[in-house]
Amino acid sequence: MTDDNIIYIGKKPTMNYVLAVATQFNSGSDDVIVKARGRSISKAVDVAEIVRNRFITEATVDNIQISTEVLEGEEGRTSNVSSIEIFMKKK
Amino acid sequence: MTDDNIIYIGKKPTMNYVLAVATQFNSGSDDVIVKARGRSISKAVDVAEIVRNRFITEATVDNIQISTEVLEGEEGRTSNVSSIEIFMKKK
Repeated sequence: MTDDNIIYIGKKPTMNYVLAVATQFNSGSDDVIVKARGRSISKAVDVAEIVRNRFITEATVDNIQISTEVLEGEEGRTSNVSSIEIFMKKK
Repeated sequence: MTDDNIIYIGKKPTMNYVLAVATQFNSGSDDVIVKARGRSISKAVDVAEIVRNRFITEATVDNIQISTEVLEGEEGRTSNVSSIEIFMKKK
């Protein structure tokens, strides 16, 4: 799996990411990972659900991992942010 | 497992739910399910991560399921909302 198969969820509209994931699957990938941090986590779940239900019905959610990332801010302060990785697979 | 073991994430501060989950574990439950819908999904992930990292270090995330729920609104309109269930286990 190459990095192309990872879709990072950010501040764009949900459908942009849905199309990015669908395009990955339609260009021959069997695996796509949807990644997000913080408040974008809800959007990542929306993206996976919309892809699976409406665009790529052969796609399934294979596994979901959550973790905590430590971000370094100004003046060396650190803050923790939750992250999610949704592993999608096309049969 | 009874319904007591399900913690629904809503609009209260994150730490309220962290304490609710920690209290469940400390009162003898070996399994707790953290559930959320829509924008609260990010908070559910935060809750699970904070419980696991800071409060109940024997607790692990056993499994995560995502799904789509159909909500019926006014005038019979329906809308889809994503949901998450985080299954936590204490060894």
